[in-house]
Amino acid sequence: MTVDLVERDRPGRSGRRSEPRRTGRATPGSLARVNGPVVRVGVLGCGTVGSSLITLVQRQRATIASRTGLQLDVSRVAVRDSGRPRSVELPAEAFTTDADGLVADPAVDVVVELIGGIEPARTLVLEALAAGKPVVTANKALLATHGAELFAAAEAAGVDLLFEAAVAGGIPFVRPLRESLLGEPVHRVLGIVNGTTNFILTRMTESGADYGDALAEAQALGYAEADPTADVDGLDAAAKIAIVASIAFGADVTADDVVAEGISGIAAADIAFAGRHGFVVKLLALAELVEGADGPEIGVRVNPVLVPETHPLASVRESFNAVFVQGDAVGDLMFYGRGAGGDPTASAVLGDLIDAAVNLNSGAHASIGRLAPARIRPAERSSSAYYVSIQAADRPGVLAAVAGVFGDHGVSIASMEQEGGAEEGRARIEFITHLAVERDLRATLDALRGLDVVHQVGSVIQVLTSEDADS
Amino acid sequence: MTVDLVERDRPGRSGRRSEPRRTGRATPGSLARVNGPVVRVGVLGCGTVGSSLITLVQRQRATIASRTGLQLDVSRVAVRDSGRPRSVELPAEAFTTDADGLVADPAVDVVVELIGGIEPARTLVLEALAAGKPVVTANKALLATHGAELFAAAEAAGVDLLFEAAVAGGIPFVRPLRESLLGEPVHRVLGIVNGTTNFILTRMTESGADYGDALAEAQALGYAEADPTADVDGLDAAAKIAIVASIAFGADVTADDVVAEGISGIAAADIAFAGRHGFVVKLLALAELVEGADGPEIGVRVNPVLVPETHPLASVRESFNAVFVQGDAVGDLMFYGRGAGGDPTASAVLGDLIDAAVNLNSGAHASIGRLAPARIRPAERSSSAYYVSIQAADRPGVLAAVAGVFGDHGVSIASMEQEGGAEEGRARIEFITHLAVERDLRATLDALRGLDVVHQVGSVIQVLTSEDADS
Repeated sequence: MTVDLVERDRPGRSGRRSEPRRTGRATPGSLARVNGPVVRVGVLGCGTVGSSLITLVQRQRATIASRTGLQLDVSRVAVRDSGRPRSVELPAEAFTTDADGLVADPAVDVVVELIGGIEPARTLVLEALAAGKPVVTANKALLATHGAELFAAAEAAGVDLLFEAAVAGGIPFVRPLRESLLGEPVHRVLGIVNGTTNFILTRMTESGADYGDALAEAQALGYAEADPTADVDGLDAAAKIAIVASIAFGADVTADDVVAEGISGIAAADIAFAGRHGFVVKLLALAELVEGADGPEIGVRVNPVLVPETHPLASVRESFNAVFVQGDAVGDLMFYGRGAGGDPTASAVLGDLIDAAVNLNSGAHASIGRLAPARIRPAERSSSAYYVSIQAADRPGVLAAVAGVFGDHGVSIASMEQEGGAEEGRARIEFITHLAVERDLRATLDALRGLDVVHQVGSVIQVLTSEDADS
Repeated sequence: MTVDLVERDRPGRSGRRSEPRRTGRATPGSLARVNGPVVRVGVLGCGTVGSSLITLVQRQRATIASRTGLQLDVSRVAVRDSGRPRSVELPAEAFTTDADGLVADPAVDVVVELIGGIEPARTLVLEALAAGKPVVTANKALLATHGAELFAAAEAAGVDLLFEAAVAGGIPFVRPLRESLLGEPVHRVLGIVNGTTNFILTRMTESGADYGDALAEAQALGYAEADPTADVDGLDAAAKIAIVASIAFGADVTADDVVAEGISGIAAADIAFAGRHGFVVKLLALAELVEGADGPEIGVRVNPVLVPETHPLASVRESFNAVFVQGDAVGDLMFYGRGAGGDPTASAVLGDLIDAAVNLNSGAHASIGRLAPARIRPAERSSSAYYVSIQAADRPGVLAAVAGVFGDHGVSIASMEQEGGAEEGRARIEFITHLAVERDLRATLDALRGLDVVHQVGSVIQVLTSEDADS
């Protein structure tokens, strides 16, 4: 659909003053007035997201002006190769290979960082903030490792550091969490925040494909990289949930704090078992606030989970993302949408860019607050229900022996299922436990491996149950 | 879980100044400083939501102070009967039966309106705004009938009028739509915004209950009123989608503009047909921006829809709500959560209250902008796929005759199914059409009713298809 939206007049946050106000160390230049103040945007990086952003800003310029009174103008773009042809409509002189020069340019009011990685992104963001320029970034790796430093720099400079696109792509989630839920006692966030793995698991669930075939399909369709490690091992999701934990609980959580397990060990048989028992397998990133012996602790992890088919997260298919939030007052919330892609990511960046421009013009800024040191709960003290699959001898008495091992370690069994195995004399036995402490579960697995009748301990996957709501 | 959240330090929007600033016509009193400015809140109404709000503000007071630098203090509460015992912990002198006096009280900085209905709520909100006091309201009926007047009053006064809780209860949706998506070309919003009807339809789908039994169960469980008209006839959803259309498209859309059809005509046979063909029946509220002959038009309606089981809205069960948003850049988004209830609604009100307090302190305000007159697309020009069920004579040639009527009126059939009827000599024939203009569909139905072989035209229900994405 191509309706002209220019005449639409939609709400925005506006300063009470109609004149732009210069305060503190904000932009060295002054905002020019051409039918309302012009906010000059410098973009670092002009790949897929950068190109989408520049095009979107130009398309929506009149709409944004009518709603905020501000003219957004992409004035400078830093690229690696200035000679490369671009799909965006900007004069050649807008492009530069001098990223530091762009950040320092008095004709740039707001900096958008889309180059990714740690350096030189970190230095450029710090330079921009030190110059009193708000920064919008989509860089999850940077925030998940140097978040506390960057937020402190933004706070010291009294300007915005906004990062909606760094978590769950186009989904407006960071701002609702930071602002709408600022007073809500949020105690848990569960996210499907990696589209590649969700695509692979959806294929395995819906077509019965095994992991290798589903990965190959994802690669053929461009949903997975040639080297898929960062996605399938859960590292991408770990960076995102570290950022979520930081803003949800106001603590300095980094990617290193996250215990991450990927999906490469998920077998077609596990998916089939899950389906028979009303579950689907999802790679979930979890951040939760729990009461420890010495006060609140933060649990952060990424791993496959059996999710009940009736849970809203179970309906998140293909490469879509979703973030599920549990608060004491609001109950369950879910935010769903595209976690990646040029246009969705550009949409999130634009939302931040407008916020930064409006705040710059009105002299306010969004504060992340002080990130306290995080007390991370050790993984072995976390609790969950578990699915456990073992290969054991197919003869009378084995089931009782195996079940006894669970009981001896304080792990209560919710249900079990035994099938004659494909191999002579072997049975596949699958258990679902009640909530168990991970340390006890590990001890159970060690003891099972020591039993003569147990040939192999196979998949061990967490199970999301209604018990989780009470933990 | 009862973790003490007081020490958490979470982000918020803060003004750059540490001192409160008095501007324009804002609060007649001045914000007092006790460990940061105190914002004094007057609450109109102390029912379920009011009580939840007061308790939540008190519980979260220290957390809010640490994140915003502001102390929220519920100083006055207007009630109908001041002698009634209350579950909230406030001194007796905080209560008053004089709502006008509360609004005018110099010791009230922000007004929260939770009394509902049109009057006296409208007059009280206008008085508060005229006195320069920000207003937070959960009143959907008021906004859906007098929204333009109230937004204009807020704009003239230069203060906030916030209403997150008026649409989809506790779900943070209004603020993301107003702010995060301010630059996004949103062209359609589809919502499950009435928990009562979603509960009834979920029961009909999952237990095979007929409408009457499911309604009785909803009433027994407190999900439906003794007089369920406003819910089951779609009037509650109509008010909410009018508000959504107003803010999504910046136009003055009122409840009277919405063509609403309820769920009382949905038969168990319709639900069963839907299930056999991979659909679930949902009551959807729709707001869309379409290109008309003379420029953009807004379509707003509420009616039952067959939703594909794989669509995220299909997974919204029981009394939960969800709002599905389609934008040109961001693609599909969904916001899910509790649409009603004291605590979820209070959570949304608190989010607004914090925003209003922070804005009041920093001298900014959220602007809804000017609402343009709305050009509403007449219902007969809307287009949709349809499910049509008819009772016809069970003999050769009937199907061809009936199918011919569809073709004669330009309505293309996507699939059809014929069953021998329960009654002698009658068959039930069910059709799903491709996208058709409503005027053509109506003409088809009229012509069908004129056929000798057609005994009855039964249910006619819209169908959500992937074709909708292209319309």
